[in-house]
Amino acid sequence: MHILILGGDGYLGWPTAMHLTAKGHHVAVVDNYLRRRLCREENVEPLFDVPNLHERVGLWESVSGYKIPVFIGDLADWEFVKEVFQTFTPEAIVHYAEQPSAPYSMLNRRAAMLSLQNNLTVTANVIFAVREFSPDAHIVKLGTMGEYGTPNIDIEEGWLEVEHNGRRHKFLYPRQASSLYHTTKIMDTDLLWFYVRTWDIRVTDLMQGPVYGLFTDETADDERLFPFFNYDEIFGTVLNRFVVQSVAGYPLTVYGKGGQTRGYLNIKDTLNCVRLSLEQPAKAGELRIFNQFVETFTVNELAELVQRVGNQLGLNVQIRSVENPRKEAEDHYYNPAHTGLLELGLKPHFLTDEILAQMLETVLRHKANIQEHKIYRKVKWS
Amino acid sequence: MHILILGGDGYLGWPTAMHLTAKGHHVAVVDNYLRRRLCREENVEPLFDVPNLHERVGLWESVSGYKIPVFIGDLADWEFVKEVFQTFTPEAIVHYAEQPSAPYSMLNRRAAMLSLQNNLTVTANVIFAVREFSPDAHIVKLGTMGEYGTPNIDIEEGWLEVEHNGRRHKFLYPRQASSLYHTTKIMDTDLLWFYVRTWDIRVTDLMQGPVYGLFTDETADDERLFPFFNYDEIFGTVLNRFVVQSVAGYPLTVYGKGGQTRGYLNIKDTLNCVRLSLEQPAKAGELRIFNQFVETFTVNELAELVQRVGNQLGLNVQIRSVENPRKEAEDHYYNPAHTGLLELGLKPHFLTDEILAQMLETVLRHKANIQEHKIYRKVKWS
Repeated sequence: MHILILGGDGYLGWPTAMHLTAKGHHVAVVDNYLRRRLCREENVEPLFDVPNLHERVGLWESVSGYKIPVFIGDLADWEFVKEVFQTFTPEAIVHYAEQPSAPYSMLNRRAAMLSLQNNLTVTANVIFAVREFSPDAHIVKLGTMGEYGTPNIDIEEGWLEVEHNGRRHKFLYPRQASSLYHTTKIMDTDLLWFYVRTWDIRVTDLMQGPVYGLFTDETADDERLFPFFNYDEIFGTVLNRFVVQSVAGYPLTVYGKGGQTRGYLNIKDTLNCVRLSLEQPAKAGELRIFNQFVETFTVNELAELVQRVGNQLGLNVQIRSVENPRKEAEDHYYNPAHTGLLELGLKPHFLTDEILAQMLETVLRHKANIQEHKIYRKVKWS
Repeated sequence: MHILILGGDGYLGWPTAMHLTAKGHHVAVVDNYLRRRLCREENVEPLFDVPNLHERVGLWESVSGYKIPVFIGDLADWEFVKEVFQTFTPEAIVHYAEQPSAPYSMLNRRAAMLSLQNNLTVTANVIFAVREFSPDAHIVKLGTMGEYGTPNIDIEEGWLEVEHNGRRHKFLYPRQASSLYHTTKIMDTDLLWFYVRTWDIRVTDLMQGPVYGLFTDETADDERLFPFFNYDEIFGTVLNRFVVQSVAGYPLTVYGKGGQTRGYLNIKDTLNCVRLSLEQPAKAGELRIFNQFVETFTVNELAELVQRVGNQLGLNVQIRSVENPRKEAEDHYYNPAHTGLLELGLKPHFLTDEILAQMLETVLRHKANIQEHKIYRKVKWS
């Protein structure tokens, strides 16, 4: 299948590109290095340097034999979008090309506006490009479990059948997020759902939980092929950050009560979820929604797990509760469905002591790179 | 009260400005003439010319004695927004500053992108400006009943208490609109609701149905003070359009089966709804939502009403069903609540034969201005 990966330089984009070529697909990657620029501007570069996208593609070709065309440019620019879609006619598009950080979106007005305008404009351009150049192509869009927030009822997989005054209607599951970034993802869903109904495009929306890990089958031990590994509070996901904090001897920072529960997954599962969705596409006129995670943890549970495994490796891991800089429930009901991807064939990788130990050991080798002042940036919601 | 009217040149903005000054408020108006530009570009100018905003303000001052400062500029430009909020510190903001047409938003890619970017950027800038310069100011935002679409259950006033698997949660009423324009309004709601929860701003969201009419207490018989009166399929609301079609001897164009039901209101009621909301503001941290209409009609009912009253005036009014260019239900359940504004004190103006006859007679005086080719533009949804 010809697959275009938008945001192909990112934490998930690059591993996805390697994975899909290894599984026999023809892949092209598109990126404007926005994530790299924002990390540099905010002084929160990843744990180790990764080569630019042209270099990574060259390395991957020398290791695997697979070629991946690269398009460098801004998908908010229609002229560029047109060039990409006319040069590489995709049968499917994986859309990761968004500003991906909740704290970044809450930094200040300019960061908020960048998140809003970038994410919405790119999603709209992708829809218009599919309509104009590849009307039958399948869009696989990365959404987030954060779109649902933490309602007091079970979270279903995308839709909710409501009974009210004796009548029934099936709605898009009502969404209510706790950051501007997550709110832009709700808006993406609004936009995609409108054009699915109006133009019969085919879309899979993957409502993903926080991802952890840096190994995939394709990176093997070659660290030059690793994805970005951010350990700061802005771009680092919580488990990755806790692993680095453990190694640095920096107490694990739990926000408030630590009862915040989320659905997590290993980066290997992200790649499989995306591939399974591509290989069994949504129908024309279908918005197919999957909740993409494999197990839930509270922040306290994650912190205790990292502490236990870290201490077994001889680290001295402390946990410290800090005042919550976010506005969110710290103790709440959380029962989200997640059967769709299992039915497509997903074989989950759960968070074992071994996997955590492997992450800790890898980060220990890079301990000298850790800059403590990058970890905790106190981005406040209000 | 110091009230800033964004989109103060528009069909509703200008009459609102006159009305609020007549009721003793201090008003400033802001506009970039976007609506005028789009009408000219699409060759669908209104039935009669209206003076520019500086001229209108001068006329109103000569008639009433009230002064209204004018700011001409683009509210998508932060420097301009800042200047406006620093010059005229508002206690309330009426936000009409959006691309207001569903068919325009479906014209082509550029029109869609303009609608999306303009509406979202302006709403975000208004939120940021309130946060930075007038944190206690009340935002009165014009939403639309179209955000709800036509679900098969009763439409409540903004919110829906859902019972599911034995647990309960109160959600923002799930929204599903039938044009990109209406979808941008859903996104506005997402954005406002997020910042209401996060920053405790105060917002009233008025979910308005289609408005008709051109007389308000302040225009009296002075036609130079009338609002825009569009009669084309792009910017003209349905009843205004039917009135002009009757006068022109152009059959009333009913889309498909004509069972599309909506909640309508007289422009006088819009002004009162906005004023009542301003004078009894939302609390800090409250998103208050009202469904703003006074009675429902199907398109067939409206066409038959206009036909009957038109024929009484000696016109020969025909009705013609045309293939529906939109993608919408033509026959559906529709039972929306609308008690909130009545509780605030609204005294509705219902659509009587007399009101319709007055509209027909006014348009008859301008019959020579009607350009038939402007009426029906066949903007197709797909």
